[in-house]
Amino acid sequence: MTRRGVLRLVALGVGLVATSAAWGAAPADEIRAVLSAQVAAWNRGDLDAFMQPYDHTGSLRFASGGTVTYGWQPTLDRYKKRYPDKAAMGVLNLEVVDVMLPAADAAVVFGRWELRREHDHPHGLFTLVLHHTADGWRISADHTSAAEP
Amino acid sequence: MTRRGVLRLVALGVGLVATSAAWGAAPADEIRAVLSAQVAAWNRGDLDAFMQPYDHTGSLRFASGGTVTYGWQPTLDRYKKRYPDKAAMGVLNLEVVDVMLPAADAAVVFGRWELRREHDHPHGLFTLVLHHTADGWRISADHTSAAEP
Repeated sequence: MTRRGVLRLVALGVGLVATSAAWGAAPADEIRAVLSAQVAAWNRGDLDAFMQPYDHTGSLRFASGGTVTYGWQPTLDRYKKRYPDKAAMGVLNLEVVDVMLPAADAAVVFGRWELRREHDHPHGLFTLVLHHTADGWRISADHTSAAEP
Repeated sequence: MTRRGVLRLVALGVGLVATSAAWGAAPADEIRAVLSAQVAAWNRGDLDAFMQPYDHTGSLRFASGGTVTYGWQPTLDRYKKRYPDKAAMGVLNLEVVDVMLPAADAAVVFGRWELRREHDHPHGLFTLVLHHTADGWRISADHTSAAEP
């Protein structure tokens, strides 16, 4: 084999490995990465970035306690009202307890959330329904509950 | 065609209609029927019957507020402790808001719950994950939240 031939094979191998790294992640790992990016966004005070993985349509359903909010913008508005500054946002941590994959393009994620703030420590549970789209995994429904203070 | 032949065809037709009625219900209707039976059981004070559609294994996950209970028996025990008599149970009503069917054997149901009791009216939201089994639809995960009183 010529040297050029060997180089081509090496390039092909590198390309395959790179493609595998980008496309080959297990759905559960892809979803965990989405949630990690959300936590990072929250903890730098960027609610718009935190909201990016939510379905950008009016059909997004955000349920919390006894209240349901529909749509991306109303959900962002709700977050901005409840968490007007870094002190209110505190430091978010999410623990993914379970990722169910009932279909190749659908997931149900259950976990725990907590906010560490100067004067309190709200925490509770979340159930997310996600769908895989051309833009990656998107949260189409969020149900959050809080422990009694 | 002989008379016996006609009778056979009629019998076949009756059989097909009966099969269609038993097997042909849409999954969302089957699930609504499961929840209606649960409401009826609750409202006659029968928690054991109410619990029947829950997955009868240790992997059942029942999440409420900030607390997670695993397993059928511990979940029943939790209900019996919280709702020791008819007065505590009150009158349950469920409103199914949405039934998602990500696969033929999996469903995510979202809705509202309320209890009408003599002195209060607790209410909130629920997200159920169901799987279709040989015994019909079974709830494998329940996430319930309550409105602030």
